[in-house]
Amino acid sequence: MGTPDPVRRSERARTAVLESTIDLCRADGFARMTIEGIAERAGVSKKTIYRWWSSKGEVLLEALAGRAEIAAAFPDSGDLVRDMCAQTMSVVELLSPQETSPYASLVAEGQRDPALSAAIRTRLVDPFIARFDERMHSAVAARELPASVDLGVAVDLFYGPIYHRLVFGLGLPDGPQLETRVRHVVAALRSGGVPRPPAG
Amino acid sequence: MGTPDPVRRSERARTAVLESTIDLCRADGFARMTIEGIAERAGVSKKTIYRWWSSKGEVLLEALAGRAEIAAAFPDSGDLVRDMCAQTMSVVELLSPQETSPYASLVAEGQRDPALSAAIRTRLVDPFIARFDERMHSAVAARELPASVDLGVAVDLFYGPIYHRLVFGLGLPDGPQLETRVRHVVAALRSGGVPRPPAG
Repeated sequence: MGTPDPVRRSERARTAVLESTIDLCRADGFARMTIEGIAERAGVSKKTIYRWWSSKGEVLLEALAGRAEIAAAFPDSGDLVRDMCAQTMSVVELLSPQETSPYASLVAEGQRDPALSAAIRTRLVDPFIARFDERMHSAVAARELPASVDLGVAVDLFYGPIYHRLVFGLGLPDGPQLETRVRHVVAALRSGGVPRPPAG
Repeated sequence: MGTPDPVRRSERARTAVLESTIDLCRADGFARMTIEGIAERAGVSKKTIYRWWSSKGEVLLEALAGRAEIAAAFPDSGDLVRDMCAQTMSVVELLSPQETSPYASLVAEGQRDPALSAAIRTRLVDPFIARFDERMHSAVAARELPASVDLGVAVDLFYGPIYHRLVFGLGLPDGPQLETRVRHVVAALRSGGVPRPPAG
Protein backbone atom coordinates (compact mmCIF):
# COMPACT_ATOMS: atom_id res chain seq x y z
CA MET A 1 0.00 0.00 0.00
CA GLY A 2 2.74 2.46 -0.96
CA THR A 3 5.01 1.31 1.87
CA PRO A 4 8.25 -0.38 0.77
CA ASP A 5 8.09 -4.16 0.84
CA PRO A 6 11.61 -5.56 1.25
CA VAL A 7 10.51 -9.17 1.00
CA ARG A 8 8.81 -8.63 -2.32
CA ARG A 9 11.70 -6.49 -3.58
CA SER A 10 14.15 -9.19 -2.59
CA GLU A 11 12.06 -11.81 -4.38
CA ARG A 12 11.99 -9.67 -7.52
CA ALA A 13 15.78 -9.29 -7.38
CA ARG A 14 16.23 -13.06 -7.01
CA THR A 15 13.98 -13.74 -9.99
CA ALA A 16 15.81 -11.12 -12.07
CA VAL A 17 19.17 -12.71 -11.22
CA LEU A 18 17.99 -16.21 -12.13
CA GLU A 19 16.43 -15.12 -15.41
CA SER A 20 19.47 -13.04 -16.35
CA THR A 21 21.71 -16.03 -15.67
CA ILE A 22 19.78 -18.27 -18.06
CA ASP A 23 19.70 -15.55 -20.72
CA LEU A 24 23.41 -14.76 -20.46
CA CYS A 25 24.43 -18.40 -20.37
CA ARG A 26 22.47 -19.05 -23.55
CA ALA A 27 23.80 -15.92 -25.28
CA ASP A 28 27.48 -15.95 -24.26
CA GLY A 29 28.10 -19.48 -23.00
CA PHE A 30 28.93 -20.43 -19.43
CA ALA A 31 32.68 -19.80 -19.75
CA ARG A 32 32.26 -16.15 -20.78
CA MET A 33 29.44 -15.41 -18.32
CA THR A 34 30.49 -13.48 -15.18
CA ILE A 35 28.80 -12.60 -11.89
CA GLU A 36 29.41 -8.97 -12.86
CA GLY A 37 27.54 -9.43 -16.13
CA ILE A 38 24.64 -11.14 -14.37
CA ALA A 39 24.43 -8.33 -11.80
CA GLU A 40 24.43 -5.68 -14.51
CA ARG A 41 21.70 -7.38 -16.55
CA ALA A 42 19.55 -8.03 -13.46
CA GLY A 43 19.99 -4.48 -12.13
CA VAL A 44 21.39 -5.59 -8.77
CA SER A 45 24.81 -5.31 -7.16
CA LYS A 46 27.40 -8.10 -7.24
CA LYS A 47 27.20 -8.05 -3.42
CA THR A 48 23.52 -8.98 -3.63
CA ILE A 49 24.35 -12.03 -5.74
CA TYR A 50 27.21 -13.13 -3.50
CA ARG A 51 24.88 -12.85 -0.48
CA TRP A 52 22.85 -15.73 -1.93
CA TRP A 53 25.31 -17.79 -3.98
CA SER A 54 29.06 -18.39 -3.97
CA SER A 55 29.72 -19.05 -7.68
CA LYS A 56 28.13 -18.66 -11.09
CA GLY A 57 27.72 -22.45 -11.22
CA GLU A 58 25.55 -22.31 -8.10
CA VAL A 59 23.41 -19.49 -9.53
CA LEU A 60 22.90 -21.51 -12.70
CA LEU A 61 21.93 -24.62 -10.72
CA GLU A 62 19.33 -22.59 -8.79
CA ALA A 63 18.02 -21.08 -12.03
CA LEU A 64 17.66 -24.50 -13.62
CA ALA A 65 16.36 -26.40 -10.60
CA GLY A 66 12.91 -24.87 -11.15
CA ARG A 67 12.87 -25.39 -14.89
CA ALA A 68 14.21 -28.93 -14.73
CA GLU A 69 10.97 -29.94 -13.03
CA ILE A 70 9.71 -30.36 -16.55
CA ALA A 71 12.17 -33.15 -17.26
CA ALA A 72 11.42 -34.75 -13.90
CA ALA A 73 7.81 -35.35 -14.97
CA PHE A 74 7.23 -39.05 -15.60
CA PRO A 75 4.10 -39.68 -17.62
CA ASP A 76 2.24 -42.83 -16.62
CA SER A 77 -0.18 -43.77 -19.39
CA GLY A 78 0.24 -47.48 -18.75
CA ASP A 79 2.48 -47.79 -21.84
CA LEU A 80 6.07 -47.91 -20.61
CA VAL A 81 7.72 -47.60 -24.04
CA ARG A 82 5.66 -44.60 -25.02
CA ASP A 83 6.12 -42.90 -21.64
CA MET A 84 9.90 -43.42 -21.57
CA CYS A 85 10.20 -42.15 -25.16
CA ALA A 86 8.43 -38.94 -24.06
CA GLN A 87 10.47 -38.69 -20.84
CA THR A 88 13.88 -39.19 -22.45
CA MET A 89 12.91 -36.75 -25.20
CA SER A 90 12.21 -34.07 -22.58
CA VAL A 91 15.75 -34.60 -21.24
CA VAL A 92 17.19 -34.31 -24.77
CA GLU A 93 15.25 -31.07 -25.22
CA LEU A 94 16.71 -29.65 -21.98
CA LEU A 95 20.19 -30.43 -23.34
CA SER A 96 19.53 -29.01 -26.84
CA PRO A 97 21.20 -27.41 -28.61
CA GLN A 98 24.22 -28.69 -26.76
CA GLU A 99 26.39 -25.66 -27.68
CA THR A 100 24.13 -23.16 -25.90
CA SER A 101 22.01 -25.26 -23.52
CA PRO A 102 22.42 -23.91 -19.97
CA TYR A 103 21.67 -27.40 -18.65
CA ALA A 104 24.46 -28.93 -20.78
CA SER A 105 26.79 -26.22 -19.39
CA LEU A 106 25.79 -27.11 -15.85
CA VAL A 107 26.48 -30.81 -16.48
CA ALA A 108 29.92 -29.96 -17.92
CA GLU A 109 30.76 -27.59 -15.05
CA GLY A 110 29.79 -30.20 -12.47
CA GLN A 111 32.54 -32.46 -13.82
CA ARG A 112 35.13 -29.78 -12.96
CA ASP A 113 33.75 -28.73 -9.59
CA PRO A 114 33.08 -31.45 -6.98
CA ALA A 115 31.09 -29.11 -4.69
CA LEU A 116 28.82 -28.11 -7.56
CA SER A 117 28.51 -31.78 -8.57
CA ALA A 118 27.31 -32.66 -5.06
CA ALA A 119 24.78 -29.83 -5.19
CA ILE A 120 23.54 -31.00 -8.60
CA ARG A 121 23.01 -34.49 -7.23
CA THR A 122 21.04 -33.17 -4.24
CA ARG A 123 18.95 -30.63 -6.14
CA LEU A 124 18.43 -32.36 -9.47
CA VAL A 125 19.67 -35.94 -9.80
CA ASP A 126 18.40 -37.53 -6.58
CA PRO A 127 14.82 -36.20 -6.95
CA PHE A 128 14.90 -37.22 -10.62
CA ILE A 129 15.97 -40.78 -9.78
CA ALA A 130 13.31 -40.99 -7.04
CA ARG A 131 10.60 -40.19 -9.59
CA PHE A 132 12.17 -42.55 -12.11
CA ASP A 133 12.10 -45.35 -9.52
CA GLU A 134 8.41 -44.63 -8.82
CA ARG A 135 7.63 -44.96 -12.54
CA MET A 136 9.50 -48.29 -12.66
CA HIS A 137 7.58 -49.55 -9.61
CA SER A 138 4.38 -48.62 -11.40
CA ALA A 139 5.57 -50.62 -14.45
CA VAL A 140 6.22 -53.60 -12.18
CA ALA A 141 2.73 -53.27 -10.69
CA ALA A 142 1.31 -53.20 -14.23
CA ARG A 143 3.39 -56.29 -15.10
CA GLU A 144 5.27 -54.37 -17.78
CA LEU A 145 8.52 -55.17 -15.94
CA PRO A 146 9.49 -58.10 -13.70
CA ALA A 147 9.60 -57.49 -9.93
CA SER A 148 13.29 -58.41 -10.04
CA VAL A 149 14.15 -55.41 -12.26
CA ASP A 150 17.45 -53.74 -11.29
CA LEU A 151 16.63 -50.03 -10.99
CA GLY A 152 20.30 -48.98 -11.15
CA VAL A 153 20.71 -50.83 -14.45
CA ALA A 154 17.42 -49.35 -15.68
CA VAL A 155 18.38 -45.71 -15.06
CA ASP A 156 21.87 -46.21 -16.54
CA LEU A 157 20.49 -47.86 -19.70
CA PHE A 158 17.60 -45.44 -20.31
CA TYR A 159 19.71 -42.28 -19.85
CA GLY A 160 23.22 -43.55 -20.65
CA PRO A 161 22.81 -43.22 -24.44
CA ILE A 162 21.97 -39.52 -24.07
CA TYR A 163 25.00 -38.72 -21.91
CA HIS A 164 27.36 -40.94 -23.91
CA ARG A 165 26.49 -38.92 -27.00
CA LEU A 166 26.61 -35.63 -25.07
CA VAL A 167 30.13 -36.02 -23.64
CA PHE A 168 31.66 -36.87 -27.02
CA GLY A 169 29.59 -34.42 -29.06
CA LEU A 170 28.18 -37.29 -31.14
CA GLY A 171 24.85 -35.52 -31.66
CA LEU A 172 21.93 -36.00 -29.27
CA PRO A 173 19.48 -38.73 -30.33
CA ASP A 174 16.35 -37.73 -32.24
CA GLY A 175 12.88 -39.22 -31.65
CA PRO A 176 13.29 -42.41 -33.75
CA GLN A 177 16.78 -43.03 -32.30
CA LEU A 178 15.42 -42.61 -28.77
CA GLU A 179 12.55 -44.98 -29.49
CA THR A 180 14.94 -47.67 -30.79
CA ARG A 181 17.04 -47.33 -27.63
CA VAL A 182 14.00 -47.37 -25.31
CA ARG A 183 12.67 -50.53 -27.03
CA HIS A 184 16.05 -52.22 -26.54
CA VAL A 185 16.22 -51.20 -22.87
CA VAL A 186 12.72 -52.44 -22.10
CA ALA A 187 13.59 -55.78 -23.76
CA ALA A 188 16.78 -55.94 -21.67
CA LEU A 189 14.93 -55.23 -18.41
CA ARG A 190 12.24 -57.82 -19.20
CA SER A 191 14.89 -60.46 -19.90
CA GLY A 192 17.00 -59.70 -16.81
CA GLY A 193 20.09 -60.04 -19.03
CA VAL A 194 21.66 -63.09 -20.63
CA PRO A 195 22.13 -65.68 -17.89
CA ARG A 196 25.40 -66.33 -16.08
CA PRO A 197 26.84 -69.77 -16.73
CA PRO A 198 26.07 -72.22 -13.90
CA ALA A 199 28.77 -72.23 -11.19
CA GLY A 200 31.22 -75.14 -11.04
CA MET B 1 78.50 -40.18 -32.85
CA GLY B 2 79.05 -37.14 -30.66
CA THR B 3 77.44 -34.75 -33.17
CA PRO B 4 74.28 -32.99 -31.94
CA ASP B 5 71.07 -34.69 -33.09
CA PRO B 6 68.25 -32.13 -33.23
CA VAL B 7 65.64 -34.70 -34.23
CA ARG B 8 66.38 -36.89 -31.25
CA ARG B 9 66.55 -33.84 -28.93
CA SER B 10 63.21 -32.64 -30.22
CA GLU B 11 61.70 -36.07 -29.69
CA ARG B 12 63.01 -36.14 -26.11
CA ALA B 13 61.47 -32.70 -25.46
CA ARG B 14 58.11 -33.86 -26.84
CA THR B 15 58.11 -36.93 -24.65
CA ALA B 16 59.08 -34.85 -21.60
CA VAL B 17 56.21 -32.42 -22.27
CA LEU B 18 53.64 -35.21 -22.68
CA GLU B 19 54.76 -37.05 -19.55
CA SER B 20 54.89 -33.84 -17.51
CA THR B 21 51.35 -33.02 -18.64
CA ILE B 22 49.97 -36.35 -17.42
CA ASP B 23 51.86 -36.02 -14.11
CA LEU B 24 50.75 -32.43 -13.47
CA CYS B 25 47.15 -33.12 -14.46
CA ARG B 26 47.03 -36.00 -12.03
CA ALA B 27 48.72 -34.02 -9.23
CA ASP B 28 47.06 -30.61 -9.55
CA GLY B 29 43.97 -31.22 -11.66
CA PHE B 30 43.40 -29.88 -15.16
CA ALA B 31 42.02 -26.51 -14.01
CA ARG B 32 45.16 -25.59 -12.05
CA MET B 33 47.60 -26.95 -14.63
CA THR B 34 49.29 -24.28 -16.82
CA ILE B 35 51.45 -24.38 -19.94
CA GLU B 36 54.07 -22.57 -17.85
CA GLY B 37 54.02 -25.34 -15.23
CA ILE B 38 54.30 -28.03 -17.90
CA ALA B 39 57.26 -26.22 -19.51
CA GLU B 40 59.03 -25.89 -16.20
CA ARG B 41 58.58 -29.53 -15.27
CA ALA B 42 59.61 -30.75 -18.74
CA GLY B 43 62.66 -28.46 -18.84
CA VAL B 44 61.61 -26.75 -22.07
CA SER B 45 60.45 -23.23 -22.94
CA LYS B 46 56.79 -22.25 -23.24
CA LYS B 47 57.60 -21.29 -26.82
CA THR B 48 58.58 -24.89 -27.55
CA ILE B 49 55.21 -26.12 -26.32
CA TYR B 50 53.26 -23.50 -28.28
CA ARG B 51 55.19 -24.47 -31.41
CA TRP B 52 53.47 -27.87 -31.27
CA TRP B 53 50.14 -27.25 -29.52
CA SER B 54 47.77 -24.34 -29.03
CA SER B 55 46.22 -25.16 -25.63
CA LYS B 56 46.76 -27.34 -22.58
CA GLY B 57 43.70 -29.37 -23.66
CA GLU B 58 45.46 -30.23 -26.94
CA VAL B 59 48.63 -31.26 -25.14
CA LEU B 60 46.62 -33.49 -22.83
CA LEU B 61 44.80 -35.08 -25.79
CA GLU B 62 48.15 -35.85 -27.46
CA ALA B 63 49.51 -37.27 -24.21
CA LEU B 64 46.50 -39.54 -23.77
CA ALA B 65 46.06 -40.57 -27.40
CA GLY B 66 48.97 -43.00 -27.03
CA ARG B 67 47.92 -44.38 -23.69
CA ALA B 68 44.27 -44.72 -24.65
CA GLU B 69 45.31 -47.41 -27.11
CA ILE B 70 44.97 -49.72 -24.15
CA ALA B 71 41.27 -49.04 -23.86
CA ALA B 72 40.84 -49.36 -27.60
CA ALA B 73 41.93 -53.00 -27.42
CA PHE B 74 38.96 -55.29 -28.01
CA PRO B 75 39.63 -58.83 -26.85
CA ASP B 76 38.04 -61.48 -29.05
CA SER B 77 37.96 -64.76 -27.16
CA GLY B 78 34.70 -65.84 -28.77
CA ASP B 79 32.79 -65.00 -25.57
CA LEU B 80 31.12 -61.63 -26.14
CA VAL B 81 29.96 -61.11 -22.54
CA ARG B 82 33.39 -61.83 -21.09
CA ASP B 83 35.18 -59.70 -23.69
CA MET B 84 32.87 -56.70 -23.24
CA CYS B 85 33.19 -56.93 -19.45
CA ALA B 86 36.97 -56.71 -19.84
CA GLN B 87 36.74 -53.94 -22.44
CA THR B 88 34.34 -51.73 -20.47
CA MET B 89 36.43 -52.29 -17.33
CA SER B 90 39.49 -50.96 -19.14
CA VAL B 91 37.52 -47.78 -19.93
CA VAL B 92 36.44 -47.47 -16.29
CA GLU B 93 40.09 -47.84 -15.24
CA LEU B 94 41.14 -45.03 -17.61
CA LEU B 95 38.50 -42.81 -15.95
CA SER B 96 39.42 -43.79 -12.37
CA PRO B 97 39.66 -42.20 -9.95
CA GLN B 98 37.38 -39.63 -11.51
CA GLU B 99 38.74 -36.74 -9.40
CA THR B 100 42.30 -37.05 -10.73
CA SER B 101 41.97 -39.08 -13.95
CA PRO B 102 43.54 -37.09 -16.82
CA TYR B 103 41.17 -38.86 -19.20
CA ALA B 104 38.11 -37.76 -17.18
CA SER B 105 39.51 -34.19 -17.27
CA LEU B 106 39.87 -34.39 -21.04
CA VAL B 107 36.28 -35.60 -21.41
CA ALA B 108 35.05 -32.71 -19.21
CA GLU B 109 37.14 -30.13 -21.06
CA GLY B 110 35.85 -31.35 -24.43
CA GLN B 111 32.34 -30.38 -23.34
CA ARG B 112 33.49 -26.75 -22.92
CA ASP B 113 35.64 -26.47 -26.01
CA PRO B 114 34.12 -27.45 -29.38
CA ALA B 115 37.50 -27.45 -31.18
CA LEU B 116 38.98 -29.80 -28.58
CA SER B 117 35.84 -31.95 -28.77
CA ALA B 118 36.28 -32.31 -32.54
CA ALA B 119 39.94 -33.28 -32.04
CA ILE B 120 38.94 -35.86 -29.39
CA ARG B 121 36.48 -37.41 -31.82
CA THR B 122 39.11 -37.63 -34.58
CA ARG B 123 41.97 -38.88 -32.41
CA LEU B 124 40.16 -41.05 -29.86
CA VAL B 125 36.45 -41.64 -30.41
CA ASP B 126 36.29 -42.46 -34.12
CA PRO B 127 39.13 -45.05 -33.99
CA PHE B 128 37.57 -46.51 -30.83
CA ILE B 129 34.18 -46.89 -32.48
CA ALA B 130 35.78 -48.43 -35.60
CA ARG B 131 37.37 -51.15 -33.44
CA PHE B 132 34.15 -51.59 -31.48
CA ASP B 133 32.25 -52.10 -34.75
CA GLU B 134 34.82 -54.72 -35.83
CA ARG B 135 34.27 -56.64 -32.59
CA MET B 136 30.50 -56.51 -33.13
CA HIS B 137 30.91 -57.81 -36.69
CA SER B 138 32.97 -60.64 -35.29
CA ALA B 139 30.14 -61.39 -32.81
CA VAL B 140 27.69 -61.46 -35.72
CA ALA B 141 29.97 -63.86 -37.64
CA ALA B 142 30.09 -66.07 -34.52
CA ARG B 143 26.29 -65.92 -34.26
CA GLU B 144 26.52 -64.28 -30.84
CA LEU B 145 24.55 -61.30 -32.23
CA PRO B 146 21.98 -61.11 -35.03
CA ALA B 147 23.10 -59.65 -38.37
CA SER B 148 20.46 -56.92 -37.91
CA VAL B 149 22.20 -55.54 -34.78
CA ASP B 150 22.15 -51.72 -34.64
CA LEU B 151 25.77 -50.72 -33.97
CA GLY B 152 24.82 -47.19 -32.85
CA VAL B 153 22.46 -48.61 -30.24
CA ALA B 154 25.13 -51.12 -29.22
CA VAL B 155 27.85 -48.55 -28.55
CA ASP B 156 25.43 -46.24 -26.69
CA LEU B 157 24.17 -49.06 -24.46
CA PHE B 158 27.55 -50.65 -23.68
CA TYR B 159 29.28 -47.35 -22.81
CA GLY B 160 26.32 -45.14 -21.82
CA PRO B 161 26.14 -46.46 -18.24
CA ILE B 162 29.77 -45.46 -17.65
CA TYR B 163 29.32 -41.91 -18.91
CA HIS B 164 25.91 -41.45 -17.26
CA ARG B 165 27.52 -42.23 -13.92
CA LEU B 166 30.59 -40.11 -14.76
CA VAL B 167 28.77 -36.88 -15.59
CA PHE B 168 26.70 -36.94 -12.41
CA GLY B 169 29.46 -38.24 -10.12
CA LEU B 170 27.34 -41.29 -9.27
CA GLY B 171 30.41 -43.52 -8.83
CA LEU B 172 31.87 -45.50 -11.72
CA PRO B 173 30.58 -49.09 -11.96
CA ASP B 174 32.65 -51.88 -10.41
CA GLY B 175 33.20 -55.32 -12.01
CA PRO B 176 29.93 -56.97 -10.92
CA GLN B 177 27.93 -53.83 -11.85
CA LEU B 178 29.57 -53.77 -15.28
CA GLU B 179 28.85 -57.45 -15.81
CA THR B 180 25.16 -56.98 -14.96
CA ARG B 181 24.96 -54.11 -17.45
CA VAL B 182 26.83 -56.02 -20.18
CA ARG B 183 24.50 -59.03 -19.72
CA HIS B 184 21.47 -56.74 -20.09
CA VAL B 185 22.89 -55.08 -23.20
CA VAL B 186 23.71 -58.38 -24.91
CA ALA B 187 20.15 -59.57 -24.20
CA ALA B 188 18.81 -56.30 -25.64
CA LEU B 189 20.89 -56.63 -28.83
CA ARG B 190 19.90 -60.27 -29.33
CA SER B 191 16.21 -59.37 -28.96
CA GLY B 192 16.36 -56.34 -31.27
CA GLY B 193 14.14 -54.51 -28.77
CA VAL B 194 10.48 -54.97 -27.88
CA PRO B 195 8.51 -54.88 -31.13
CA ARG B 196 6.68 -51.85 -32.45
CA PRO B 197 2.92 -52.32 -32.59
CA PRO B 198 1.70 -53.20 -36.13
CA ALA B 199 0.83 -50.10 -38.17
CA GLY B 200 -2.82 -49.21 -38.77
